[in-house]
Amino acid sequence: MRQIDLDELEDIAVGAGILGAGGGGDPYIGKLLAKAAVAEHGPVKVVDLEEVPGDAVVVSAAMLGAPTVMVEKLPRGDEIVKAFSLLERRLGTEVTHIVPLEIGGLNSMMPFCLAAKVGKPLIDADFMGRAFPEVQMVLPTLSGISASPMAFADDKGNGAVIEAVDNKWAERIVRASLVEMGCVTMIVGFPMTGRQARECTIPECYRTASDLGSVVRRARAKHSDAVAAVTEHLNGRELFRGKVLDVNRRTERGFARAEIKITGFGESAGQVFTLRSQNEHIVISDESQILASVPDLIITLDSESGEPVTTEELQYGFRVSCLVAPCDDRWRSEGGLAVVGPRQFGYDHDYVPAV
Amino acid sequence: MRQIDLDELEDIAVGAGILGAGGGGDPYIGKLLAKAAVAEHGPVKVVDLEEVPGDAVVVSAAMLGAPTVMVEKLPRGDEIVKAFSLLERRLGTEVTHIVPLEIGGLNSMMPFCLAAKVGKPLIDADFMGRAFPEVQMVLPTLSGISASPMAFADDKGNGAVIEAVDNKWAERIVRASLVEMGCVTMIVGFPMTGRQARECTIPECYRTASDLGSVVRRARAKHSDAVAAVTEHLNGRELFRGKVLDVNRRTERGFARAEIKITGFGESAGQVFTLRSQNEHIVISDESQILASVPDLIITLDSESGEPVTTEELQYGFRVSCLVAPCDDRWRSEGGLAVVGPRQFGYDHDYVPAV
Repeated sequence: MRQIDLDELEDIAVGAGILGAGGGGDPYIGKLLAKAAVAEHGPVKVVDLEEVPGDAVVVSAAMLGAPTVMVEKLPRGDEIVKAFSLLERRLGTEVTHIVPLEIGGLNSMMPFCLAAKVGKPLIDADFMGRAFPEVQMVLPTLSGISASPMAFADDKGNGAVIEAVDNKWAERIVRASLVEMGCVTMIVGFPMTGRQARECTIPECYRTASDLGSVVRRARAKHSDAVAAVTEHLNGRELFRGKVLDVNRRTERGFARAEIKITGFGESAGQVFTLRSQNEHIVISDESQILASVPDLIITLDSESGEPVTTEELQYGFRVSCLVAPCDDRWRSEGGLAVVGPRQFGYDHDYVPAV
Repeated sequence: MRQIDLDELEDIAVGAGILGAGGGGDPYIGKLLAKAAVAEHGPVKVVDLEEVPGDAVVVSAAMLGAPTVMVEKLPRGDEIVKAFSLLERRLGTEVTHIVPLEIGGLNSMMPFCLAAKVGKPLIDADFMGRAFPEVQMVLPTLSGISASPMAFADDKGNGAVIEAVDNKWAERIVRASLVEMGCVTMIVGFPMTGRQARECTIPECYRTASDLGSVVRRARAKHSDAVAAVTEHLNGRELFRGKVLDVNRRTERGFARAEIKITGFGESAGQVFTLRSQNEHIVISDESQILASVPDLIITLDSESGEPVTTEELQYGFRVSCLVAPCDDRWRSEGGLAVVGPRQFGYDHDYVPAV
């Protein structure tokens, strides 16, 4: 058991923003919410997977919707607590632990805020090892663990508990509802035992994010190349550096979708790259071929600072570096690709591995 | 306490189809489902409002969605029982009575089927005295009674329980979800006491429908004018008889919407009437003015048989009679019109009374 202090929150926000692969919500907003929650409720106890009892009652929490909206419409604060209470009443038993759904910028912090508000320990593990846009795109789906009962709640005081036949249906119902709610909702679901949590999560998401954030911080302190340091730390590959030429972005069916054109610098001078995103970056290609795709992490960093640039932030003129890093091995399996491969996002091609 | 026998079901189907005012779902399908439920589970006990104890636990049930879809995708049968069970578990207490949401063709029968399946008495009263397309368009809304917690369930086995801040939000969330579910869902909600049910319902919906159905049956037996008989029985006014010229119908956002052009016969020869529907008939106009609008009942009958013709059935060439009948007085109040007046359906004019 350990506590995450305010300095570490800074590193986690940067690291989780990078692991969010263009999505996961704005890390800056997440950090502010987390700091406010700690200031009001005191520090959060973070536990490792091995510390979670086998019969623990674990639930997962996240913000769901279009990050384009999330940056304009901040959470009221009690939505996620309402969703938690709805689920706990439905379960008829006390929840003992909270686990993050994804280690994205904002979504690394939402479970942290919930843990602070309801005084429950937070497990240092997540369901993705990155961010993905849809509810069923989590390792528990591969293990046959249901998202349902899954509660959700909005900023207006509306809530619901879904009992879906599978996790894709949970996604479909909550997505339709959240569009009506203004494109954002808080979800709390995936009730499972501690034993199950140990099997269907990726350990140490906060440590990983914190380490990654500190890599950026130290590189900047030394005035060295933060992008190169991140790439090396993630065992990734830098694809190109360039300037954003055009952003075709729209908030559509509860997602931030975008096609982003980037013109290359240096070795890539004269080339134009196309980045396609659905909250997260899904596929990157140059004029002749696909360079990388989900489930690997396609990451856009500010070329100067090494800080993550999310899909909703990308704008004409931004100097960005695009790198790609390998996802968790389970996502590369046949079963994993059937949940988060390019075809699941509507692309008519197979997975193009990063490295 | 009484029982409704199979002969009376026939009359109720016709009468409720008429009271459905173009909507409420296909009465023929409703009748078949009700007969099957009685055959399997035995007769349903129907009680009058005065027989309901003040502390009874009453819930309402209906099919919600686009009638265009309901006629093609019949209920599996257990959806409404699933919704009932979800709500009963949420309430943590045994439901004692079921009350219809609306006395529409199919929706007079869905609560009847539920009562048969779960062995609960059915109250002879409803929330509208007709059919309306949206969840919040019920007398309980005027009395400040919440639709929530409200359960819904689909044919695939998905369900949910909504806790909305008001009845309009319950509508918005369930509507978005039911579109995803294939435009139909079963809802069970509006938990209330027997005392509340006595205040916010219209009594004797089955008796009213049964009487109306028998008016049609007897007129046909005598080869007399069934349309005139219905009009007189409802204290209504016949607007015209004519032939359907054109039907512009689409299933949109979970509703069957239509503009129907009808050319007049007899006294109305040469005139063209426009009927606008959202499941139910909302506004009827001729070339120069609005003739009638919600909340009054705009009813289309087969000119020959006096049988109701619903929005989804109307087709080119149909000989129909259009009549209008007064709604319950509570709908004509300022508060009532703020829930079911023409403006609530997107029309930029006030209520045009029928008679």
